[in-house]
Amino acid sequence: MKFNIRWANKYDMKAVLGLIKELAVFEKEPEAVEVTEEDLIKDGFGTNPKFKLFVAEINNEIVGIALFYERYSTWKGPTIHLEDLIVTYEKRGLNIGFQLYKKVMEYAFNVGVRRVEWNVLDWNTPAIEFYEKTGAKVLREWDTAQITRDNIAAFLNKKV
Amino acid sequence: MKFNIRWANKYDMKAVLGLIKELAVFEKEPEAVEVTEEDLIKDGFGTNPKFKLFVAEINNEIVGIALFYERYSTWKGPTIHLEDLIVTYEKRGLNIGFQLYKKVMEYAFNVGVRRVEWNVLDWNTPAIEFYEKTGAKVLREWDTAQITRDNIAAFLNKKV
Repeated sequence: MKFNIRWANKYDMKAVLGLIKELAVFEKEPEAVEVTEEDLIKDGFGTNPKFKLFVAEINNEIVGIALFYERYSTWKGPTIHLEDLIVTYEKRGLNIGFQLYKKVMEYAFNVGVRRVEWNVLDWNTPAIEFYEKTGAKVLREWDTAQITRDNIAAFLNKKV
Repeated sequence: MKFNIRWANKYDMKAVLGLIKELAVFEKEPEAVEVTEEDLIKDGFGTNPKFKLFVAEINNEIVGIALFYERYSTWKGPTIHLEDLIVTYEKRGLNIGFQLYKKVMEYAFNVGVRRVEWNVLDWNTPAIEFYEKTGAKVLREWDTAQITRDNIAAFLNKKV
């Protein structure tokens, strides 16, 4: 099955949000997606875009995305963070994820960053094996810490 | 001992790099710091700053930093990533780290993001306990994956 990868535009955001929600359902957290189509358009295609993304399409239907943005390492300088690499469930196994991943690596190489990073679930062995095969290293001792707005408010003793 | 917390300016970057390197030595990776004072000035205080930071000082000497930047969650929208929270070894235990952390949370609350996140070493129990006490959650199943520029080049079969 032939697919095509290109930069996303704002008219893709409805389909992109569909993929984001599909993944959230798969991860059993459908209600966690607070972002709307309008948010994605505003945040990704405004004057100071907060992310970039490639989309993969088959017959003009979006079946995969790779969404990323710049971060900053105090050791390495600017880096690229790959936030989401999603291929719709029905279109797995067609090499789409690999090609999206490769496009991000090409972009990162061309802009000259010293590192690309992302997060992976420690039990997701196929993903980890794939990443390691491409030359990535999974730092198993580095965990992710998060605090929500509600808990920040409670910590600061403020009203949300 | 009295300390003061304020926004950093570019004249602080020499001292800030000193703290970054102190931490790298402590983590037994002194050669990993490729960033220079000039990079920090250019990247943090140019036309499109890649990070912001607070510094803590005692008698005009910088003894701690909290460095952060914006990220983007496809579930939550814009978030703040706390990249470095460093207090020089000799000035630990004076509440400086706590106050720097609090400043970042105040900043994040005021700009309106739905989440602040950062990374923590899974064996750093005192840090994890501190974060959890403030209302943060440590997601132990999410690991960090990284690929270096050299390995990206090898993956893409290009010359660095």
